[in-house]
Amino acid sequence: MGCVLGIDIGGTNIKAGLFASTGELLEVKKISTGSIVGEEAFSEVVCGLESLVTSEGFSSDDVEAIGLDVPGPVDDQGRVGMLPNIELDPEGLQSAIKAAFPAAALAFENDANAAALGELWQGSAKGVGSFVMITLGTGVGGGVVVGGRLVSGAFGAGGEIGHITVCEDEELVCGCGRRGCLEQYASAKGIVRLYGRECAARGVEGVPVEHETDTLSVFEACRSGDEAARAAIATMSDRLGYALAQISCVIDPSCYLIGGGVAGGFDLFATGLAASFREYCIAPCASARILPCSLGNEAGMYGAAYAALQQRVA
Amino acid sequence: MGCVLGIDIGGTNIKAGLFASTGELLEVKKISTGSIVGEEAFSEVVCGLESLVTSEGFSSDDVEAIGLDVPGPVDDQGRVGMLPNIELDPEGLQSAIKAAFPAAALAFENDANAAALGELWQGSAKGVGSFVMITLGTGVGGGVVVGGRLVSGAFGAGGEIGHITVCEDEELVCGCGRRGCLEQYASAKGIVRLYGRECAARGVEGVPVEHETDTLSVFEACRSGDEAARAAIATMSDRLGYALAQISCVIDPSCYLIGGGVAGGFDLFATGLAASFREYCIAPCASARILPCSLGNEAGMYGAAYAALQQRVA
Repeated sequence: MGCVLGIDIGGTNIKAGLFASTGELLEVKKISTGSIVGEEAFSEVVCGLESLVTSEGFSSDDVEAIGLDVPGPVDDQGRVGMLPNIELDPEGLQSAIKAAFPAAALAFENDANAAALGELWQGSAKGVGSFVMITLGTGVGGGVVVGGRLVSGAFGAGGEIGHITVCEDEELVCGCGRRGCLEQYASAKGIVRLYGRECAARGVEGVPVEHETDTLSVFEACRSGDEAARAAIATMSDRLGYALAQISCVIDPSCYLIGGGVAGGFDLFATGLAASFREYCIAPCASARILPCSLGNEAGMYGAAYAALQQRVA
Repeated sequence: MGCVLGIDIGGTNIKAGLFASTGELLEVKKISTGSIVGEEAFSEVVCGLESLVTSEGFSSDDVEAIGLDVPGPVDDQGRVGMLPNIELDPEGLQSAIKAAFPAAALAFENDANAAALGELWQGSAKGVGSFVMITLGTGVGGGVVVGGRLVSGAFGAGGEIGHITVCEDEELVCGCGRRGCLEQYASAKGIVRLYGRECAARGVEGVPVEHETDTLSVFEACRSGDEAARAAIATMSDRLGYALAQISCVIDPSCYLIGGGVAGGFDLFATGLAASFREYCIAPCASARILPCSLGNEAGMYGAAYAALQQRVA
């Protein structure tokens, strides 16, 4: 039996998972990296992967597929676009990995899409043909799966759920240059901002937040009965439910999965979110389920492995 | 070489197209029907189809596939749901057709979806893997095609584009029970209503409209320089462009096709629609094309034939 590697590439380290071809996660290894540019960095990564593979009794030739998920666009041909947040030479790394694991199929995948694929392969969406994964983190990412396949889009913008307009009256400008995007309400930054707005409207100071994405403090405040926090989370749930209702009019998925750091407060917003989705959606779609992701921040690693496996089959 | 039948089932007659398997339309025949319930009605339809087939030198056994499009929901299994606007016994008709054309694969398809498939097979979307067809008629229907396949949705609501919310402040209630749906702005009824609203706002009487879906009069008024008609069409284009921009955030199609009776005014609203789409969409999607359909009201007939052919292959 062969094995598969799923590699999650972040800004300061990479996390590699070794999977059985059946999807069972055998072992995880973190490899510290700075920038992944140049032969020295590549060989550090490759050495780390080789030691992970041998630790479970496999040889390099047993590795059937290697998937890498990156925080940025990957087109239909698997080419990596601009990666503003990390230093990575994708072609160089790919060549180094190919040389070390000659039998393996290689695939790059966008991180939000990889997370969706991971949940499809081994997580909450296992066996679900059509679903939308929404990653609520610093921003709001999405992965749209129809008929078991990711919809990457004609211009790479499939699943850009975070930029659905949910408030045409919003005055603040979103990172994309438009106004009133879902991301401005349902991202970590959005929730902290909404909390500040609610505190200001009430003339109260609110609990201290440590940074602009510190939803933990807002969620804790809500659990302690802070009215401004409750209102902020209600607004977030309302606008997220509204966005999901719009998505249902387009592709009518059977299920929505909520992931990312903000999903840590799922217990606080799940009821409100389900209620607002049902309020806004057309009648036939009201049975769509809204679930938390089950693979947490390992979803991308799973999905990268799955993407590479799929490429091998194709 | 065999042949294929595409049958468009309407309220008062059916229109049947005889196609070569390659997609060339050979002949069209209208068959008057009242309700299509009971043996007598079924045999009338079957006789009409047989005479169409023989008129081009084919025999019943040459018919490889027969597709029927109906104005109502058809589920993934090809089962026809409630048809509020026509009287049809789908199982009975299916049995009668099967008996007369034993070699043919049979398929039912929803009319909006069939129109999208028709454009994919032989129309404006030929060779386009992902597009959204928007049918602007009495209501607003949609057909979403991703990777060459229709997205019918988990609850049959895929492509319910007409119920994307485009104005949360709208006070009038849509047919679906919600408020501010695209259908309230971009359907024939919506345009006539917007015209009335613009006339009232200006304190003018406007041109007479013959009925609540008489967009022809509104389009003619616009061509003659009627300011209220121009404003109504500008609002319609603006809200339609806004809706397309939301769709692009979900599935990012390469192309939008505009069909239905309202598309008769495409020259009047195409420029405004393209401009508003580009104003509202995220940057990568701005290159998506917005085109008129090319098969007119024969699209459904083409698509029904194609659906049946596809089923034969599957």
